[in-house]
Amino acid sequence: MELKNMAKKLVFGHQNPDTDTIASAMGAAYLLQEAYHEETEAVALGTPNAETQYALDYFGLNPLRVIEKAETEEVVLVDHNEKAQSVANLDDVEVVGVYDHHKINFTSANPIWFTNKPLGSVATILYYEFQVNQIEIPKAIAGMLASAIISDTLLLKSPTTTKLDQPALAGLAKAAGIDDYEAYGMNLLKAGTDLSQRTARELIDGDAKSFDFNGHEFRIGQVNTVDIEDTLNRKAEFEAAMQAAEYQNFLFVITDILNSNSKAIFVGPDAAEVEKAFDAKLENNVVDLPGVVSRKKQVVPPLTAAF
Amino acid sequence: MELKNMAKKLVFGHQNPDTDTIASAMGAAYLLQEAYHEETEAVALGTPNAETQYALDYFGLNPLRVIEKAETEEVVLVDHNEKAQSVANLDDVEVVGVYDHHKINFTSANPIWFTNKPLGSVATILYYEFQVNQIEIPKAIAGMLASAIISDTLLLKSPTTTKLDQPALAGLAKAAGIDDYEAYGMNLLKAGTDLSQRTARELIDGDAKSFDFNGHEFRIGQVNTVDIEDTLNRKAEFEAAMQAAEYQNFLFVITDILNSNSKAIFVGPDAAEVEKAFDAKLENNVVDLPGVVSRKKQVVPPLTAAF
Repeated sequence: MELKNMAKKLVFGHQNPDTDTIASAMGAAYLLQEAYHEETEAVALGTPNAETQYALDYFGLNPLRVIEKAETEEVVLVDHNEKAQSVANLDDVEVVGVYDHHKINFTSANPIWFTNKPLGSVATILYYEFQVNQIEIPKAIAGMLASAIISDTLLLKSPTTTKLDQPALAGLAKAAGIDDYEAYGMNLLKAGTDLSQRTARELIDGDAKSFDFNGHEFRIGQVNTVDIEDTLNRKAEFEAAMQAAEYQNFLFVITDILNSNSKAIFVGPDAAEVEKAFDAKLENNVVDLPGVVSRKKQVVPPLTAAF
Repeated sequence: MELKNMAKKLVFGHQNPDTDTIASAMGAAYLLQEAYHEETEAVALGTPNAETQYALDYFGLNPLRVIEKAETEEVVLVDHNEKAQSVANLDDVEVVGVYDHHKINFTSANPIWFTNKPLGSVATILYYEFQVNQIEIPKAIAGMLASAIISDTLLLKSPTTTKLDQPALAGLAKAAGIDDYEAYGMNLLKAGTDLSQRTARELIDGDAKSFDFNGHEFRIGQVNTVDIEDTLNRKAEFEAAMQAAEYQNFLFVITDILNSNSKAIFVGPDAAEVEKAFDAKLENNVVDLPGVVSRKKQVVPPLTAAF
């Protein structure tokens, strides 16, 4: 059995799309068309962030169409597998494929295509799927997938980076005509760090995900910057936006992508658990997170353990 | 991140092991050793059935060591992903990898290697994993994996068969030194159909799985035969064993592998739903299932729908 070729399938990543979610939707939609003759459309659950827009402009692509709910009976998820991060009507449609690199919380009524690998980005997984299926990757899609690896691994420096990511990035950069992926990557990452034109609310929610730690609701947002202290000058603004967002707990991680460090602003009742998780004191709602750059590998696991 | 190379990992399939579960445990254990330098041991949750024993004998292999509970901190599951079909202490260990082709009901605390594809057998999935990783498959393991494809797809005739199964079987048969996989396959399947030496209890439970259909417990067993009516001569024996097994409902599917038909004996309170599922009447506890050979594709889905 392959994916049933019944009708068009929407392919999309998570809410608050980042570069990996957008690039992987494009890559998976193309892969499914070429490898399995599926009619697919890559869509997004939101507009591109500044980093993704930089990549789209660089490779001459339009942003993906934004949907609020899935309009087809069958969908393919990329870069997420949990309802909380997906379209509102996910329960009403059938998920027939998943390409992801997160923890798994998923049930299906039937056997489906589900590929989850603990690699730096979904783009890495897709790169190898293209190789297996011997499908050439179009230049612009290769460029987006390369950008996704750079974005998710902070140019291969994040602890989420695996030994499979560098060869994938090198292969994709070549296919995309990027001569020096380090130079391109620094420009891409910096494009995502111009925070001055964005409101506090946009920043706390731009790359935010909701978690449930043993019944305690946590919203965890993250921004990349090249100057944490400069970003922290807007702390009062962020705190007001975090309180207004009305989550039980809100942790806003500000990450210095040049020096691979973070500080986080915390608002909520579970301060003791936050201090326990990171073995550090909150001072004026701010906790120092030296060496932390990855929410998935360095923020969520200690919080999970603390609860 | 790859599988953490901390200690030995047990690799095992489901309870009541069939040929795909045994062969895939062997194949995945070898793949993980060669591709990721993991220390692994393929084990089983039971002794081989007659078909699997035929393949083991043919390729000069000993049966896998039988375990009752997982003895290592980390395990890899093949051919199942649900607790109900696994070791009793699954909650006490960490699942770090899954290779499967069933419906999914799984959660993990971390990103893991999880490859589920709707292909005819897990052996097919593993064959392509070996290709991707450019690892040569030892002759005996190739033979077991070829046997698993033959077993799960009834020599490529079951509706679970996909377009990826035949090339995998052909490639594995070649690696195993099987010149005529059709001839070998018929002998393998027939080896599994000598039911005369096995007790009714062994037969109803030899390839049985438990399901929950909207709160209704179902045990579904299956045997392959070359003569359904001959097997049905032992109906009273089977009914007694099914009642003694004390499941809420028990459906025992007897499948003619030569003509691709089944009849099933049913014991339990939910007869109306069984009749509804298969649009057929139970007569003396027996329902005719023309064209049915696959529990996964042709028995479980209509029962799911009926409840």
